[in-house]
Amino acid sequence: MNHIRVGIVGLGRLGKIHATNIARNIPGATLQAACSIVEAELEFARNELGVEETYQTFEEMVDSPNVDAVCIVSPSGFHPEQIQLAMEKGLHVFCEKPIGLEIEDIEKTIEVIDNHPDQVFQLGFMRRYDESYQYAKKLVDDGELGELTVIRCYGIDPSSGLESFVKFAGASNSGGLFADMSIHDIDLVRWFSKKEVSRVWAMGKNAAYPELDQVNELETGAAMMQLEDQTMAILVAGRNAAHGYHVETELIGTKGMIRIAAVPEKNLVSVFNENGAVRPTSQNFPERFQQAFQNEMKEFISCIREKRQPEVSAYDGLQSTIVAKACQQSVDTKGLIEIESAKIFS
Amino acid sequence: MNHIRVGIVGLGRLGKIHATNIARNIPGATLQAACSIVEAELEFARNELGVEETYQTFEEMVDSPNVDAVCIVSPSGFHPEQIQLAMEKGLHVFCEKPIGLEIEDIEKTIEVIDNHPDQVFQLGFMRRYDESYQYAKKLVDDGELGELTVIRCYGIDPSSGLESFVKFAGASNSGGLFADMSIHDIDLVRWFSKKEVSRVWAMGKNAAYPELDQVNELETGAAMMQLEDQTMAILVAGRNAAHGYHVETELIGTKGMIRIAAVPEKNLVSVFNENGAVRPTSQNFPERFQQAFQNEMKEFISCIREKRQPEVSAYDGLQSTIVAKACQQSVDTKGLIEIESAKIFS
Amino acid sequence: MNHIRVGIVGLGRLGKIHATNIARNIPGATLQAACSIVEAELEFARNELGVEETYQTFEEMVDSPNVDAVCIVSPSGFHPEQIQLAMEKGLHVFCEKPIGLEIEDIEKTIEVIDNHPDQVFQLGFMRRYDESYQYAKKLVDDGELGELTVIRCYGIDPSSGLESFVKFAGASNSGGLFADMSIHDIDLVRWFSKKEVSRVWAMGKNAAYPELDQVNELETGAAMMQLEDQTMAILVAGRNAAHGYHVETELIGTKGMIRIAAVPEKNLVSVFNENGAVRPTSQNFPERFQQAFQNEMKEFISCIREKRQPEVSAYDGLQSTIVAKACQQSVDTKGLIEIESAKIFS
Amino acid sequence: MNHIRVGIVGLGRLGKIHATNIARNIPGATLQAACSIVEAELEFARNELGVEETYQTFEEMVDSPNVDAVCIVSPSGFHPEQIQLAMEKGLHVFCEKPIGLEIEDIEKTIEVIDNHPDQVFQLGFMRRYDESYQYAKKLVDDGELGELTVIRCYGIDPSSGLESFVKFAGASNSGGLFADMSIHDIDLVRWFSKKEVSRVWAMGKNAAYPELDQVNELETGAAMMQLEDQTMAILVAGRNAAHGYHVETELIGTKGMIRIAAVPEKNLVSVFNENGAVRPTSQNFPERFQQAFQNEMKEFISCIREKRQPEVSAYDGLQSTIVAKACQQSVDTKGLIEIESAKIFS
Repeated sequence: MNHIRVGIVGLGRLGKIHATNIARNIPGATLQAACSIVEAELEFARNELGVEETYQTFEEMVDSPNVDAVCIVSPSGFHPEQIQLAMEKGLHVFCEKPIGLEIEDIEKTIEVIDNHPDQVFQLGFMRRYDESYQYAKKLVDDGELGELTVIRCYGIDPSSGLESFVKFAGASNSGGLFADMSIHDIDLVRWFSKKEVSRVWAMGKNAAYPELDQVNELETGAAMMQLEDQTMAILVAGRNAAHGYHVETELIGTKGMIRIAAVPEKNLVSVFNENGAVRPTSQNFPERFQQAFQNEMKEFISCIREKRQPEVSAYDGLQSTIVAKACQQSVDTKGLIEIESAKIFS
Repeated sequence: MNHIRVGIVGLGRLGKIHATNIARNIPGATLQAACSIVEAELEFARNELGVEETYQTFEEMVDSPNVDAVCIVSPSGFHPEQIQLAMEKGLHVFCEKPIGLEIEDIEKTIEVIDNHPDQVFQLGFMRRYDESYQYAKKLVDDGELGELTVIRCYGIDPSSGLESFVKFAGASNSGGLFADMSIHDIDLVRWFSKKEVSRVWAMGKNAAYPELDQVNELETGAAMMQLEDQTMAILVAGRNAAHGYHVETELIGTKGMIRIAAVPEKNLVSVFNENGAVRPTSQNFPERFQQAFQNEMKEFISCIREKRQPEVSAYDGLQSTIVAKACQQSVDTKGLIEIESAKIFS
Repeated sequence: MNHIRVGIVGLGRLGKIHATNIARNIPGATLQAACSIVEAELEFARNELGVEETYQTFEEMVDSPNVDAVCIVSPSGFHPEQIQLAMEKGLHVFCEKPIGLEIEDIEKTIEVIDNHPDQVFQLGFMRRYDESYQYAKKLVDDGELGELTVIRCYGIDPSSGLESFVKFAGASNSGGLFADMSIHDIDLVRWFSKKEVSRVWAMGKNAAYPELDQVNELETGAAMMQLEDQTMAILVAGRNAAHGYHVETELIGTKGMIRIAAVPEKNLVSVFNENGAVRPTSQNFPERFQQAFQNEMKEFISCIREKRQPEVSAYDGLQSTIVAKACQQSVDTKGLIEIESAKIFS
Repeated sequence: MNHIRVGIVGLGRLGKIHATNIARNIPGATLQAACSIVEAELEFARNELGVEETYQTFEEMVDSPNVDAVCIVSPSGFHPEQIQLAMEKGLHVFCEKPIGLEIEDIEKTIEVIDNHPDQVFQLGFMRRYDESYQYAKKLVDDGELGELTVIRCYGIDPSSGLESFVKFAGASNSGGLFADMSIHDIDLVRWFSKKEVSRVWAMGKNAAYPELDQVNELETGAAMMQLEDQTMAILVAGRNAAHGYHVETELIGTKGMIRIAAVPEKNLVSVFNENGAVRPTSQNFPERFQQAFQNEMKEFISCIREKRQPEVSAYDGLQSTIVAKACQQSVDTKGLIEIESAKIFS
């Protein structure tokens, strides 16, 4: 069987991970083309990964007759038009979250996706492909926890990046803490519970860098959600974990509890020294989700070969963005937010 | 120096713990008297603990010329009048939480306590005297965590008691999940943060026993709180932990995080068997807080001897009850609750 | 019932622990007398613990008509004659390990003990009274592990004391690493397995302070033992644990494994900071075995009251010393040591 | 650059792992040929992995002009002649441990290897390529532990395979517990310490299946070793871990300790249920060392491309076998074994 030839757009930190995986670690895939406005990134693609075709515009890349699928890792604002264009060119699409920054753009993009049911569309919710999450998901689906009552998700970035974030917080626009950091967690809440979020209250506090108040950004935030069946969800998002990259998920059910990465253990090593008994911790998302990034891309290629759609859909992307925006709205208004808008899709 | 002679009222499960500690484990204290309407409990006091004076009414006991202090472990509804009576008789008072079921009663009781400043009054917030909590408190107060941003408290009773709770839920009145289970957690939030709670949203779900809906009780609940300085607090309360008695507290600050009993380890033993690597867990509050119950009583006796008041005051009891009631009000009204009433005291 | 009146000899670090427990924490016991050649220690006994009778010689103390039992915490060389004298005076005896430095002295002392069967004799193997060890012992005796095949015991003192040890290693005589550090572990091997040790090979290495080679002392050592039923035992003893006081025991059986204090956790607190996920660790034996020291003394008093002998006997002390000496002999001769001598007693 | 074309011999459990990795997961490698006397295994290679050339004899496969390198996963007895033949045919060789069953065969094979210095030879000590072991190795080499004093290695297979082992123990010949199970651990001892083993004492116990005594096999064994610089090494090997596949390594040094997989955690999930707080455990070597098997093969391919030899040499294989045989000799003779023979090579 011929290799699936993938073209990638965006070769930043995460783009390089996807590009390297496609070039080296995904059986049956070839990194055929790369697109970036940064020449150094294209050189990386050519020299390090042996990419044959490099482009400065996405439009050129999707016109290449040698590209079967695209992997979109460009800035989020470009996602809707790039997804739509690739779909209309007959290509399969893997796109990093989110589908878009605005609900309207996402809805319009979903329409285009829905009009091309024979092309694979997959959104980059890689946590679903992490082996620990998959192990937990199976336990939940097998009923080992009984009925879920509480889901708690933490997503906290390492302190090491905070100073830089603060420096550029005014100029760039993260979309807000919850859209930036919690969208994966919101997807997990929906994935594990199979329910939608009905109401949310969210808040935040800037303690290390109070100046973030001025640019409407948050260092640490918390949200509590009620799902449509009364299940409770609790989210903590942050940018200031001294010990590294803390992504933790807890599921409480009537028959037991599960915690995924309660300690974000780097590996199987424990060190006993003058600090006590120490478990080194994951320092960033490439380290923590290395395998998950490979697994999701393998799934994308398998879906193309096997002519099926992945479990994670564009609709999942829409719903997670709606909830993330409701969190931000709650922070802005200091009130409870009822979530209604999604219902037209369900 | 003479022993402090204590009279205890209430010899149920927790009463027996306090009585046994006073009789055997608290240097400088004697269990002089016991009061109960249950004759078997008085027999226990006489035969097992060697108590010389037993009474059927609290009024009689506080009239004994041999009693210096009382330990109140009666049903919560009796607390206000028993505290007041003991205070007026010139006795030192240790009282289990809460001070009373209604805010008005508590406020009135505090007035009486305030009128007797030379007598010790201590409320049974024993967690403050647990060595793990004290270790954590010192780290926080020493600034090891920087400024606190999030406090998370879990208080979940073991599943083993749930069936019985459901059976009697209609007849008895627990005061609601948050008043019953979270008052210790609310005290911890205030103790660690040194701040008051401003706003709260709470909810619950009955999954194992949906019939609890009918009697307005909850199997599991969650509350999110905003403190006066924007610090966030998250509470989960429940009656259905399959693995035992799960009391866990987390403190997130700008410089680090602490977790107290993230795994409610029973002891230092790990078992490796067909289930995997197992840490046995605490099964109930007497097991988990055995030392804390002794420590708080030692502190009570020390305060009497050293003519000082303990750190935990009647005002702490008032504030915790106000917040617990706000949680219940939020569940009942499904809305955000602003907490104003406490401010008159601060 | 009258209190058991105890006289203590030796008020050093461990002596103070026992003295304080007897004075304050053991129901039914009174610290009646104290004996030391150090005046400051007697002052401590009088002023801090309210001891009425203080003596400079053991002979005087055991002549007091007010003493029912003695607690011997003097230097090990004095143990045999003090035990014998107390026994002959009709007193109950609690003695710290070992019974004596030489096998002959121990054997002679056991004869005296055996001639006074109505007096309680207890040896200070406090680990048997630690709740984690008791929990493990019950699992083993209940057959949860099947038949034991391997027992591993670590006893490593904190690095903080090593420099001082090295300084005085030439002048004092520790009896050797295994007699000094492993005797508790040897007792655990015998207690859990209910078998005697047949053969042993031991060795050591001085890495941090090679000068210990000159005074025939060891910083770290290991011993492997074969028990009479082929069960294997592994011991590591040391004086140089950077993280604190590391006492760990492992039991491997045909149905499972148990580890006691695999991580010597100080309490239930975890700290997440720039070092990773940290469990603070026990720093010394008073901290780790605080409860065990109280429990063993409670057992001693209970045995006196209930006219029975404790589980841990003088014979246990003899056997552990024999094995510890065999370890040292193995280090000295670099060969395997067969243990025969104990059999005359069994 | 052209792909390295690999031919594999042996497609049993471990052979399938290597074959699948070479076919799918190793950039720059192609699984060109497969050799087996089992037709079903060749079908697997053709159908599942798309292998073009399949052979029934190793001689035929190494004659193929399309094969650059071989991966030997045949029964251990065939290793020496297959290595030698491949070397003489000018092929690079990756061989599973051990190099051979007899020291003489290994020495002769090493001579052949040494005569072909431009061809890569790598032995399958995959643990060196596991990320946890590599993390630990770096800490040790960076001096974080100071000087090593004790190394402890556990290698215990899951109970699930024991019954089958017992059934066939008489007919097959495992080479003995230490050769079968401990050779990886012996390599770790040498790798971490950079020292050779001088003396060893080993023993074993058959408790679950005493009938293993009759066929000179062991269910569980222990060995203690003294290295040339007095460093101590402790090995436990077994076939009866109820909780799964327990490979654990500990390094004690003058400045700290490290444990690798003290709990052989399956993933990052913790389950809290009626058993307590449970960490699911690794169940077998393919699960535990999945990444290590890929990493070692990547290293093999890289060595070929970069014209260098891997860190793990044929000499490492010889030394580990010598020590494993000394352990078995110690069990057989019940005595201490001095290891001299290796010195001619060092």
